[in-house]
Amino acid sequence: MKQKIKFPRSEKVYLPGQLYPHIRVAMRKVELLPSVDLQEEEKVYTPNPDVYIYDTSGAFSDPAVSIDLKKGLPRLREEWIISRKDVEQLTEISSEYGRMRRDDKSLDHLRFEHIALPYRAQKGKPITQMAYAKRGLITPEMEYVSIRENMNCKELGIETHITPEFVRREIAEGRAVLPANINHPEAEPMIIGRNFLVKINTNIGNSATTSGIDEEVEKAIWSCKWGGDTLMDLSTGENIHETREWIIRNCPVPVGTVPIYQALEKVNGIVENLTWEIYRDTLIEQCEQGVDYFTIHAGIRLHNVHLADNRLCGIVSRGGSIMSKWCLTHNRESFLYEHFDDICDILAQYDVAVSLGDGLRPGSIHDANDEAQFAELDTMGELVVRAWDKNVQAFIEGPGHVPMHKIKENVERQVEKCHDAPFYTLGPLVTDIAPGYDHITSAIGAAQIGWLGTAMLCYVTPKEHLALPDKEDVRVGVITYKIAAHAADLAKGHPGAQVRDNALSKARYDFRWKDQFDLSLDPERAQSYFRAGHHIDGEYCTMCGPNFCAMRLSRDLKKTNKKNS
Amino acid sequence: MKQKIKFPRSEKVYLPGQLYPHIRVAMRKVELLPSVDLQEEEKVYTPNPDVYIYDTSGAFSDPAVSIDLKKGLPRLREEWIISRKDVEQLTEISSEYGRMRRDDKSLDHLRFEHIALPYRAQKGKPITQMAYAKRGLITPEMEYVSIRENMNCKELGIETHITPEFVRREIAEGRAVLPANINHPEAEPMIIGRNFLVKINTNIGNSATTSGIDEEVEKAIWSCKWGGDTLMDLSTGENIHETREWIIRNCPVPVGTVPIYQALEKVNGIVENLTWEIYRDTLIEQCEQGVDYFTIHAGIRLHNVHLADNRLCGIVSRGGSIMSKWCLTHNRESFLYEHFDDICDILAQYDVAVSLGDGLRPGSIHDANDEAQFAELDTMGELVVRAWDKNVQAFIEGPGHVPMHKIKENVERQVEKCHDAPFYTLGPLVTDIAPGYDHITSAIGAAQIGWLGTAMLCYVTPKEHLALPDKEDVRVGVITYKIAAHAADLAKGHPGAQVRDNALSKARYDFRWKDQFDLSLDPERAQSYFRAGHHIDGEYCTMCGPNFCAMRLSRDLKKTNKKNS
Repeated sequence: MKQKIKFPRSEKVYLPGQLYPHIRVAMRKVELLPSVDLQEEEKVYTPNPDVYIYDTSGAFSDPAVSIDLKKGLPRLREEWIISRKDVEQLTEISSEYGRMRRDDKSLDHLRFEHIALPYRAQKGKPITQMAYAKRGLITPEMEYVSIRENMNCKELGIETHITPEFVRREIAEGRAVLPANINHPEAEPMIIGRNFLVKINTNIGNSATTSGIDEEVEKAIWSCKWGGDTLMDLSTGENIHETREWIIRNCPVPVGTVPIYQALEKVNGIVENLTWEIYRDTLIEQCEQGVDYFTIHAGIRLHNVHLADNRLCGIVSRGGSIMSKWCLTHNRESFLYEHFDDICDILAQYDVAVSLGDGLRPGSIHDANDEAQFAELDTMGELVVRAWDKNVQAFIEGPGHVPMHKIKENVERQVEKCHDAPFYTLGPLVTDIAPGYDHITSAIGAAQIGWLGTAMLCYVTPKEHLALPDKEDVRVGVITYKIAAHAADLAKGHPGAQVRDNALSKARYDFRWKDQFDLSLDPERAQSYFRAGHHIDGEYCTMCGPNFCAMRLSRDLKKTNKKNS
Repeated sequence: MKQKIKFPRSEKVYLPGQLYPHIRVAMRKVELLPSVDLQEEEKVYTPNPDVYIYDTSGAFSDPAVSIDLKKGLPRLREEWIISRKDVEQLTEISSEYGRMRRDDKSLDHLRFEHIALPYRAQKGKPITQMAYAKRGLITPEMEYVSIRENMNCKELGIETHITPEFVRREIAEGRAVLPANINHPEAEPMIIGRNFLVKINTNIGNSATTSGIDEEVEKAIWSCKWGGDTLMDLSTGENIHETREWIIRNCPVPVGTVPIYQALEKVNGIVENLTWEIYRDTLIEQCEQGVDYFTIHAGIRLHNVHLADNRLCGIVSRGGSIMSKWCLTHNRESFLYEHFDDICDILAQYDVAVSLGDGLRPGSIHDANDEAQFAELDTMGELVVRAWDKNVQAFIEGPGHVPMHKIKENVERQVEKCHDAPFYTLGPLVTDIAPGYDHITSAIGAAQIGWLGTAMLCYVTPKEHLALPDKEDVRVGVITYKIAAHAADLAKGHPGAQVRDNALSKARYDFRWKDQFDLSLDPERAQSYFRAGHHIDGEYCTMCGPNFCAMRLSRDLKKTNKKNS
């Protein structure tokens, strides 16, 4: 497996904090060539400023760090966590299932070797970023994200509102989430909220029929290379526990899961046999492994399940269909809803965030914005307040499949019903007629919903609805969603977002081809397309030929104008 | 070259007119499998209605028509044109250059053999669709498009406002264009206007350094297969005249060009040597070949050229940079602007539409919605009225590169300044940082601008900014833009648009995989992705495995609910 990540002419740099001078905020710096102008037959060089790029690739792109997947990434945040003196390291893992897997010799060959004992809050100590924020404390994590969100601003003198104190307030008020399980100290701090850069999540994971641990870890690193901000492991096959350990230990971004998937495996796929006890043990198992956020479909209410009956596509959320079946079979409210406070009590001890899953999200254009969907949203609004009361950071999942004219209503209702909690949507796909291209149908919706205030976009790959994504699909899915998120950042006027567009456009106008490639989201692809085009070097290309190059003509004109004036 | 086009389980059908019973409106009918339900252990079959798909592939997809590229397509509209008794067939082609090329023996091996003599309006006879519409006449072309736009509506009892009379009024008032050069009778009528289905244009064409006639004709047919509504031939290399003849004779959709490109070739690329006389002869040459619309950059005014000086990317329109250079060199208004009435007089004799080119469109996010762009738009508003006065159908070209929050202003200004003339935009790209993926950056903008009322979207391929597109790029570009256009149709509530989404979604819920593929924009790709996924047949797939299939669980639930109620 190729572990190191390299981008052309890029340097890994670290910016220090002011409140916390020891923090090192990772960025990728791209050095640009100077612009060249011909004045009086002489070449005049004007330097172009470096461009800083938000970097999700962690230590994998730092040539100074040696990577050993068997040992995992450096534990960046461990010192910060310990020095707060409010957590304890356990002497034994708490989950019964976790201990069983650990003691199963037949799994030795699969197992990640260097598992540390987990941390947990000291009894009665509130240790979540939200708890600190409410108390007025700015953590190193908060300062880290404030610097990270401001790439290029300080260097170019761009004014910005994103201070450490602003970050603190957004978290305290529930408008932003900083996922930071104390058992995933390898992850670099990042923030999810409408007043920050729009983030993207990528899904990986095997199913009962496909792929192994190596392949999933490789996809995880690959996703971080191209710009995935968080990573959900949606594995449903065998060895979920072991796969997850490998992923978390090697993942520089927050990891999410849907614990009900593993719980269902534990009862051999028989939905009616799921119990609160099994689910509870699964939560604890994953909290102690270091999962940063859980999708929990607690918004499914017994009296709402039938609302999906009249749909064209019924229930398309896996978790939603599982919990709906459970509710109907037992004719009672789900244990997720009934035990939601207990769930939050567990999550608070590790600072795991809750992502309220939209089990009744529409699965087709026809079903968008219907009663079932909005009834669940109302319940989520009730639950998010209960999470906040326990200092648990929370965000809200959203659709799915929505035609463009119904996107705005989704965001407005979510903001209102869920009291400004961050929104995290899957696409949405704006039409159903393009299987094989659903990264595109959904990016159209994602860009718009991001602009309207959605904080994180869950990527969709070209294989959606058809097969599980391979590595190339992950790459295309991530880049497509980076486009949607960045387009939203531009439209929202995020400070510093347009710096990269301007630098790339200027490079284009200057015929600095190398700079164009290196500033682009996927330098390798841009360069390979260019090369395949058999380009002539210099100030035109095969696209238009020398007589029809608008940019060349335009530059010549500008020179003529200057001379005449 | 593979000439016939085949879609799986699709039948080419022709619907008759009512006013003109002899017209045969081509569509693709997809037959679907029945839904299967298990009731009391017995399978119950419910049929699903056929779905009609808007079809741009012409006779190429009709197994009853034998295709011979050397002879060209059947001349569908010739009878309609002749029977109006207002045109004459010339005894000699009018363009000097055209005659020269015809008489050049060295070109014999390149030449399309079966060139018919051109038609032209009888002296003083107004023969454009707009002229007919203003006089209250509904032409067969108008009835054709009214039927074409209403696919699925009659069959499913959907009410629609798109009557032949509605079409006539939209054309009379300039809100829609029906491109229909009397010398391109092979083209099937289609309409471009905000109150109709959103259309897409594809660009093909060689440059000085690449590709030959065969390849361009193949790309043209390929574009029509995937759904291109019009086709622009932007060739700038050698043998433009001969390439165009081959394309037009084999093209079932309207063809557009930018005549200044060929004019510039005629003066060996020396901009200052361009004259009205050379341009005029080029217009006539192309009118008589059958080009349906011309992009003409008449909106460039001498006093506006300098407005682009302060831009990051100057002028990025080829035509715009050529005409700007001409204006500055000669220090006078362009011959396109000065002779605009003469141009319209020529176009009116063949019913060629004018597409007012946006020579000062922004070429980067930074330059969007600037003074240069909007100054040109004002001029276009003046010109469109002059075109209409001559009964010339007209539409307005638009950008380009625009961040999402500035898209709306583009459409609103265009509608206001250009008096409701149809808008035809290139994307727009909503960010500049993704060369290699600009079909996606631009589809995000295209879907939104289409929803806001843009009538036609010019496609962008993955190779934009990097190289000329190959066949695969054309396919991806067309499908991507069909997605954007269809998403806009859904959001606009076009009657019948959602029929296909609903049918595909129902097929998905029913696990009718074959129907999903056949209803999709690219059945071949969907199927190949599915197959590569090693799917298990039946009611789940490798994506989730049997225990986690939400749709299967959801269907089971619905059945349980039915039994219990």
